[in-house]
Amino acid sequence: MAEKSHYNYRVEPQDVDFTLRATIPSLGSAILNTAGVDAHGKGFGVDALNADNHSWVLSRMAVEFDSQPTQYTDYTIATWINEYGRVLSTRNFTLTDAAGTEFGRAVTQWAMIDLKSRSALDLSWVGDAHADAIVDAPSPTDKPRKIREVNPAQTVEHKVVYSDIDFNRHVNTMRYIEMMIDMLPVELLMQETPVRFDIHFLRECRYGQTLSVGYEQRGRTALFEIRSDEGTPAVRASIEWK
Amino acid sequence: MAEKSHYNYRVEPQDVDFTLRATIPSLGSAILNTAGVDAHGKGFGVDALNADNHSWVLSRMAVEFDSQPTQYTDYTIATWINEYGRVLSTRNFTLTDAAGTEFGRAVTQWAMIDLKSRSALDLSWVGDAHADAIVDAPSPTDKPRKIREVNPAQTVEHKVVYSDIDFNRHVNTMRYIEMMIDMLPVELLMQETPVRFDIHFLRECRYGQTLSVGYEQRGRTALFEIRSDEGTPAVRASIEWK
Repeated sequence: MAEKSHYNYRVEPQDVDFTLRATIPSLGSAILNTAGVDAHGKGFGVDALNADNHSWVLSRMAVEFDSQPTQYTDYTIATWINEYGRVLSTRNFTLTDAAGTEFGRAVTQWAMIDLKSRSALDLSWVGDAHADAIVDAPSPTDKPRKIREVNPAQTVEHKVVYSDIDFNRHVNTMRYIEMMIDMLPVELLMQETPVRFDIHFLRECRYGQTLSVGYEQRGRTALFEIRSDEGTPAVRASIEWK
Repeated sequence: MAEKSHYNYRVEPQDVDFTLRATIPSLGSAILNTAGVDAHGKGFGVDALNADNHSWVLSRMAVEFDSQPTQYTDYTIATWINEYGRVLSTRNFTLTDAAGTEFGRAVTQWAMIDLKSRSALDLSWVGDAHADAIVDAPSPTDKPRKIREVNPAQTVEHKVVYSDIDFNRHVNTMRYIEMMIDMLPVELLMQETPVRFDIHFLRECRYGQTLSVGYEQRGRTALFEIRSDEGTPAVRASIEWK
């Protein structure tokens, strides 16, 4: 059995908005970066998998922030894997300030795909091969929720450009989150209340496609659906302010 | 007289494009982050100036990369101020890999503005007050070039959204660079040749404005001009591949 791993970060000037607090995308980016660095350091990162023509793909993600730290705040992200299912592995995170207070947490679920067929691989063998990487600690919050239906009241189009794509030539997760957050009335983002964000990926979007980003406000919850060229749902997400 | 200051970075997964090399915006972001952190540490950062209702504003920037480092490469940014003019101060940078080879450099020029009037302040007193922060070393390359005229062959519109703006509620520098780079044929960005990027700022762009981003290719040089709602030029830039 392994232990949780810890990585240190600081809220840099480019991470904050005009309230001087770290934005949801910048904290999300630190969380996903931690996943990449931890997997890399343990020998099952994207770079190692690519040698076998495999890659990790984020399938679902839930993040909760009780508060968003201000510029130049030091914080620590702890991460651990506690489960390998047949298709999804679960990687968890907590975010803690210098005083040791937990102010955020995340649960992510990852599939391993074959880069040629782009289909999901059976993870049973990974669970066996990397059993020593599993940490016997529960996820710090509910697993990512599936968002079943969104009825957008507003829609904007977004053409996928160079800056949107990752090493896989697909739209990177943070850009999806930004596309959605950018539709919100800015007042919602200035609230200093706990927030939970859930996102799940149905289909990959590629360079040159034109996406439509739909937004529906349902009480204290914002719902989003991004559709690709073909009109099929690619990403759904929700943001809930407590 | 002061010494150059050094800051360590690593090319993280979110910094690379599909060639697995750090993008120009991600390296530019590390350079500007270094400026912010160094000024902060020395007591004349934006946070300290804000108490007097003043702020640093980037006026011009030139960056050169002989090559772009690949994912997980460690590198060091050295920075030093070598000049306070009446209106502009000059901050320099070199980027060096773990073997000590310099692979990039930058020269930036900053104005100090009054946040109420948004007009530039005379820097003579800063040069006196912070004379001990000046390093007696020349800039590592030519100062940023002024781009006088751009005749765009292509133009795209960009509405300024939440994710585009910084703590000042103005479009952040990296977003301007991304808007321009995203107009280029992607093949130009895949070249492994030395590149020089110059940008200068004429007017600030704000949340909610609709910008037009113009692009002209002149031989091995790409020229850009961003105009704001009122049709006045706000930013001009050039990218030159050697």
